[in-house]
Order: sequence, then C-alpha cells, then structure tokens
Amino acid sequence: MAETEVAQVRFGIVGCANIARKVARAINLASNSILHAIASRSIDKAKRFASDNGLDPRVKIYGSYDQLLDDPSVDAVYMPLPTSLHVHWAVMAAQKGKHVLIEKPTALDVGELDTILEACQSNGLQFMDGSMWLHHPRTVKMKEMLFDSKLLGDVNYIYSTSTTSASPEFFENDIRVKGNLDSLGALGDLGWYCLGAVLWAKNYQLPTVVTALPDVTTNSDGVIVSCSASIQYKEPSSSGATTNAIIHCSFLADTSMDLTITGSKGSLNLNDFIIPQRESSASFEFTLGAKFVDLHIGWNVKPERVVVNCDELPQEGLMVEEFTRVVAGIRTTPGVLPDPKWPEISRKTQMLVDAVKKSVDLGCKPVYF
Amino acid sequence: MAETEVAQVRFGIVGCANIARKVARAINLASNSILHAIASRSIDKAKRFASDNGLDPRVKIYGSYDQLLDDPSVDAVYMPLPTSLHVHWAVMAAQKGKHVLIEKPTALDVGELDTILEACQSNGLQFMDGSMWLHHPRTVKMKEMLFDSKLLGDVNYIYSTSTTSASPEFFENDIRVKGNLDSLGALGDLGWYCLGAVLWAKNYQLPTVVTALPDVTTNSDGVIVSCSASIQYKEPSSSGATTNAIIHCSFLADTSMDLTITGSKGSLNLNDFIIPQRESSASFEFTLGAKFVDLHIGWNVKPERVVVNCDELPQEGLMVEEFTRVVAGIRTTPGVLPDPKWPEISRKTQMLVDAVKKSVDLGCKPVYF
Repeated sequence: MAETEVAQVRFGIVGCANIARKVARAINLASNSILHAIASRSIDKAKRFASDNGLDPRVKIYGSYDQLLDDPSVDAVYMPLPTSLHVHWAVMAAQKGKHVLIEKPTALDVGELDTILEACQSNGLQFMDGSMWLHHPRTVKMKEMLFDSKLLGDVNYIYSTSTTSASPEFFENDIRVKGNLDSLGALGDLGWYCLGAVLWAKNYQLPTVVTALPDVTTNSDGVIVSCSASIQYKEPSSSGATTNAIIHCSFLADTSMDLTITGSKGSLNLNDFIIPQRESSASFEFTLGAKFVDLHIGWNVKPERVVVNCDELPQEGLMVEEFTRVVAGIRTTPGVLPDPKWPEISRKTQMLVDAVKKSVDLGCKPVYF
Repeated sequence: MAETEVAQVRFGIVGCANIARKVARAINLASNSILHAIASRSIDKAKRFASDNGLDPRVKIYGSYDQLLDDPSVDAVYMPLPTSLHVHWAVMAAQKGKHVLIEKPTALDVGELDTILEACQSNGLQFMDGSMWLHHPRTVKMKEMLFDSKLLGDVNYIYSTSTTSASPEFFENDIRVKGNLDSLGALGDLGWYCLGAVLWAKNYQLPTVVTALPDVTTNSDGVIVSCSASIQYKEPSSSGATTNAIIHCSFLADTSMDLTITGSKGSLNLNDFIIPQRESSASFEFTLGAKFVDLHIGWNVKPERVVVNCDELPQEGLMVEEFTRVVAGIRTTPGVLPDPKWPEISRKTQMLVDAVKKSVDLGCKPVYF
C-alpha cells in the first residue's frame, strides 16, 4: 500500500441511524479519513441514506452488517446501533480487525463493554465512544483553566444537565425508550454526557458513592425517561476539599445542556456543553473570586465570557480526526499501540451509568465504588 | 396625628447585625418610611453602628431591645437577630403593637413561626420576611412570563443554588454556624432562598415530598454547612406535567445564586437571583422552543437576554416600600387588615426548610406533605 492510502482511514458505518448523517459528514470533513461503505439491515434503507445525504457514488452500500465487516478495505467502523446490539457487533468488528468508534452509551453495562474492549485490545485496535464535546476546542480551553492554571482552585461542586422534550412519537417508537433495545433510556442517552462531564471535571477520578434521586420517572417498559443523581467524592484533595456533583437527565423537559463547575476560587458556567449553539464558535462564562460589595448591594465582579472559535472542523470532525490520527499511527508505525485514554474514559463513564442504574433499581440506595 | 405623620412608617431596628446597614439605607431610601430608632444589647455597639453608617442624629439609640419596643413612636421593627431569638423578640414586638419585618430564616421551625404569626395576627399587624429578591422588578417580569403569558408552558424542572465560600473566621465565629444560635446553618441562611424560589416558581403550591441528598455536610456543632435536596410535585398539572426541583446551598463553594426554570416550552436562567450583580439593572435569559438544527450541529435559537431596570429603588427599598404600604393602609384606614400573602409565603418557605432539615435528621429519608 502507498503511504497516502495507509494514512487515510477508510470508514464503514454500521447502521443508518439519524446520528450517522452527522458523522458521515464529519468523516468527509476530517483530513485523514474517508467514508468507504455504509450498511443497514435493509439495502433499501442504506440506499436511501446514501442518496438523502448526497454520499459519493463510490461509497459501497451493503444490506447487512456482516457484509460490511467482511470488506477488507474497511479499516474502522462507526457504529450508531441500538445499545443492546453493541456488544455483538462491536466484538464482531474487532474480530475482523476493524477499529471501533461507537455511539454512547457504549453498552448496557460495563461487563458488556469489557467484552468489547477485550476484543479491541487483543486485536490491537483503537476504541473510542462518540462523546463529541470532549473534542471541542472550548473543552480544551476549559480543561486548561481547570487543571493547568488551576484558576478555579479545587473543584467543590459540579452540576450538569442534559434534557430534551421528546415528542409523543419518540415515546411510541424511538429505540431509546424500548426496554429490549436500550434499557438505559435517558440515563444512557443523555445522562452519559452529564456523568462524563463530572468525570472530566474531576480529571477522571472515580467518585466514592453515587445515589439516584427519588425523582426518577420510568415508562411502561421500565425504561428511565427522567432521573437525577448525586455523585460524591468523599476523599479530600490535597487542600482538604471534597466534591459533590448533581446531574439531571430527562426526555421530559425542554432542551438544556448545562454545566457548572464551582471551585474554591471561582466558577465556570455554560448552557450548551454537548452541542454548542453555533458550530463555528462557542463560549463559556467564568467568575473569579466573586464577593459582594459593601452593603451587599451588588457583586465585585461580573462573569467574563470566553469565546472559542471552532471554524476549521466541527467537534465531531475533530473527534473523527483524533480517532483516525491514532488509527493511522497504529497502522503505519510498527509497535504503536492503541491509545488507552479513550477506552478508559468510556469505561469510567459506563461505570457511573451502571451505578446510577443500580441505585435506581435499588430504590435510590447509595452505590459505592 | 396629621396624615403625613401617619403615612410615614417609623422603623426601629432590633439588633445591629451587618445586614441592618443595608436595610437602614433602604428604610431611608423608601418614600414612606423613616428610621426612628436602633437597638443593640450594647449601647456602645448601637452608637458605633449609628456613627459608622452616618445615621441621622435624630435616630434614637437604645442599649436594649426592650427599650426600643417600649418606644411608642416605633410603628414597625426590622429584626435581623440570630434565628433562635426570633420567636421571643418578634412575639414581644407584636405584643407591643409593632409590625414585624424579620430576617430569614423566620424561625427555627414552623411551630415557632406560627407563634410569631399568631401574635401578629391577633394584634392586627403585618408580618413579612426579608426575602428581598421577591420585590425586584426582574422577579415581577419573570413572574409575568411564567404565570400571565405562560410563555414557558408547564414548569417541569427547577434548579436553584445559593453558595458562598465562607472564611475560617466565619466558621469560628459566625452565628449562622453556631448550634445554639442558628441550628439551621446554611439551610436556613442560604437554602431559604432556593426553597423560596421553588415555591415562587410553582406559585406557592406545596410539594408532595422533599428528600435531602446524601451530600450533606455538618460542622462539629451538627449545624448544616452544605446540603442539597430534591423537591417533588407528583400531582400532575392540568396538562399532565409533574415538577421536580433540586436545590443546593453551601458555605463551602464559591459564590453562586443560580435559578433555572425549565418548562414544556422553554427555559429561564439567571445566575444572580438573590443579589443582582448590579444594583441599577438586572437581567435574565430565556430560551423558547430550543431544538437542534438539521444534523444536530447547532441550535435553532439562542438564549434571549431580558434587562430590567431597577433605578428608582434597590430591591430592599422596594421590600420596605411594600411592607410600609400595607402598614400605612392598616394604620390609616379602619377595617384594613394585614396582607395574608406575606406571612403565607414565609410559612410555606419555613415548611420546606423544616422538611429538608427533618430529612437530613432522618438520614435522607423522604418527608411527605
């Protein structure tokens, strides 16, 4: 193979879900990847997906997932399947030597995820989940503030939401509220982001204990459609601070994606952390050392807004580029191994999802790590 | 008495706490009130308060609360005493015919508050607590949106915080963390606002159940210095919506005063709901019908900011003016009774404070209404 061919990672998309449209675009926008094939269980659906999205006529169209996985030209798969199908198809993909970029939630539980991760690792393949916001330059900027300059001091409190007002059709038909397809419901689909944000803000330290709040709502299938949780870090940091977090995810309230991180010296706040309001630039606010002026009739500081441009590639393009950067490295350079950072992030997030689910199932009892 | 004399309500301040400086200014700024007297248990402290704050030399200075309450020229008292002293001195004030404006939390529990309210009612006196933000024109504007135009639809979710990073001296000396002076700690001092905001957003409907979260922190006196709670309205509204709320109050994190209300059609958000960042104008953001654009690469709407001027009187001045408007009505017009709205707001807020405290004491068990 010529070097240019090797460097360009050829993607197969397994499952023509709605989200695949966004990632197909991202694969084409990213510099080191190309969309090679798509597969649906129905060839008609796959063809319609290709024409609806104006895919290059050279993109191969398969009427089964197996056919795509048997295509030796596919280097990596993007897998937006219902969660209950992840373990089967992701393991199959790994066994056929494909790197795996998979939608969240990664699996129904961490046991299943470990099966996937083991299949990827034993075949020397990269694994990453589709948490796009982690790749946005705004996230990088906030991370610098939190961990490099430690501008906010010790993190005392984290609050994160992911809510959306789902339509009656969604509750009738969507896979994310079907017990046999995605038993994690809103917790897996939306809470994944909130729990991931808590871990991110704590630099991927695991908490001491997770407790679901009594406000959980389930549908007739027993699937969570709205819930909240308390996440506690009881072990004090070097300065003696502990951290408490609260997350809230719901299919029952209007769109929100709030993330607030309050530290000992200041706080950081944004209301669109998962999908920025605009693609080309995003912002967050921070407030440092807020006190009240004399007589407590106002604040000594106002929140400052930081705007971060994102005009070269959207966050999902940056995600694809990071994934393919690692994949290309593994493929071109002998001895280069998969980056353990990404499966570790997925695994810890799945552990927190599992803990909230377990707490819900136990009637909001605390679940210790 | 000439009519102008009657119309102007003469205030006595019982207790020279820090917050009294702000309210003394407000009494002088408001059009229908005048500061007549101040009292401290120490005449020296009262004198120092008068000179430090440039009070009019005609303001009477008393070295005991009793002396102030015995002054027949005092029509109304403002009482910023430690919570544990409220029931004694507020009842005493009412028995001596003084209208009562009292700092929050109003009492150690609703039983004590009822004793105060009964004393006020049986003497035909107005009662109000010092929740200043309820009187800000921004609050009035948000209320219109919520209840008159119903712009946000049914309220599904409310989130409110009140946090401040207290100094080591505060933890050593402040009355708000002393078990014998204010056993409600951060819950009474800060959580009062959050629980009040939940009630306000639900138009003072009481919830079904209140549950403290396991993240409660107490000091060596057993006083709450940080806690959170889940507040559930299980009875569906006419459209079938229920409401969940989460509050967080803490002396252990940097300054925050967040209020988010998410409805079926939109959401409302502000980060300084208790003390606006600037005195002369305040703002909030709202977002209506937020959806994602095609491919989910952005939002169809951006939050809109509403700026509300507050340049005639600060919120505490408006509070004093509302209190004295009612008091002047009672005093000048035979048959006019105290406005039951204000004691009802205080009582329901105290009921929620009590419920969170009880849940904390029960190890985070649910407390039903």
